[in-house]
Amino acid sequence: MATTLDFYFEFSSPYGYLASTQIEALAMETGMNLQWHPILLGPMFKAMGSGPLTQIPMKGAYALHDFKRSALLAGIPYSQPDPFPIATVGAARATLYALAHHPQKAPALIKALYHAYFAEGRRIDEVDVVLQIAAECGLDRAAVAEGMASEPIKAALKKEVDDAMAKGVFGSPFMLIGDEPFWGFDRFDHIRKWLALQADAKLAHP
Amino acid sequence: MATTLDFYFEFSSPYGYLASTQIEALAMETGMNLQWHPILLGPMFKAMGSGPLTQIPMKGAYALHDFKRSALLAGIPYSQPDPFPIATVGAARATLYALAHHPQKAPALIKALYHAYFAEGRRIDEVDVVLQIAAECGLDRAAVAEGMASEPIKAALKKEVDDAMAKGVFGSPFMLIGDEPFWGFDRFDHIRKWLALQADAKLAHP
Repeated sequence: MATTLDFYFEFSSPYGYLASTQIEALAMETGMNLQWHPILLGPMFKAMGSGPLTQIPMKGAYALHDFKRSALLAGIPYSQPDPFPIATVGAARATLYALAHHPQKAPALIKALYHAYFAEGRRIDEVDVVLQIAAECGLDRAAVAEGMASEPIKAALKKEVDDAMAKGVFGSPFMLIGDEPFWGFDRFDHIRKWLALQADAKLAHP
Repeated sequence: MATTLDFYFEFSSPYGYLASTQIEALAMETGMNLQWHPILLGPMFKAMGSGPLTQIPMKGAYALHDFKRSALLAGIPYSQPDPFPIATVGAARATLYALAHHPQKAPALIKALYHAYFAEGRRIDEVDVVLQIAAECGLDRAAVAEGMASEPIKAALKKEVDDAMAKGVFGSPFMLIGDEPFWGFDRFDHIRKWLALQADAKLAHP
């Protein structure tokens, strides 16, 4: 059975956006089964006594520069959105609706929402914009609207965040391979190297 | 004239230690003139309202795991020291003394101090241990002791920290190439790619 790559992401996270453009290739290349998990960083920041990167003195200015440079060096379109960060509960709920009811369309929706915000400056904190993007991805606008507002989807998002925190997830992007945690777009190479070490260990002690 | 690679590091910083083992190779490979800058993170944490990584809820446990795994994946010896973090003002002053008076021996001292703490668990917060390591690096123990305690060296460390903060340095390791800032051992690859972009731009617009 293929190993699962659990990918946690918040729609307001620049490094989450960068990771979202490459995570499918990583899963394919390493033969892992990709699971998408939209989360919200708010409750995690609260638990850590922290806040959005860009609002931290000194580190904030660097972060804004590093977002753009990281995108440039990876060949990913990026335009720092304003306002930033934004509320992403609607985008996350629409994603959970798609994952539950139209799983084959969900990855395209996730990537379209991220691209809309970080490359086109569209306001994905607005329900109308989320619905418009969902429609562009071939989802039924009215069904998504109903799903986003439904109690099961609201409960599912709360559960995603609670479950993620229970597993030690505190940032975005965050990848779990079984119990092994990886935080950050800059850990993709560590994932590759770590998997190679596991494979070597299996060969040595089958 | 060769470009300067300014390398800022705090002796209590695990990622600073990892970077210290590879920074000379990076400078050599990219043809840059390496300048070592011992700093203290305390005043920077104060400016950011932050603290040692390992003391942050959730992130702390991950950080301890990531220190070891980052070292393992890079093939660098690492053993999480206890106590951690420690006061490193003595180690930083000894380094500044060496940089000022025995520059050819300073890199070996820096690497020996880091290795002593992060691979051997030696207490480099103790002056006697710093002096012992300095002697192992071929420096005169009494002269280092006198230098560490001297007003010019105390003032030089304060100036290093102030100058670094004025340039936006807020962490360890931190690399400056002119005005271009890079934070973290995981940005070594960005440095390589960024330098290649600069070279391409020069070729296009000489």
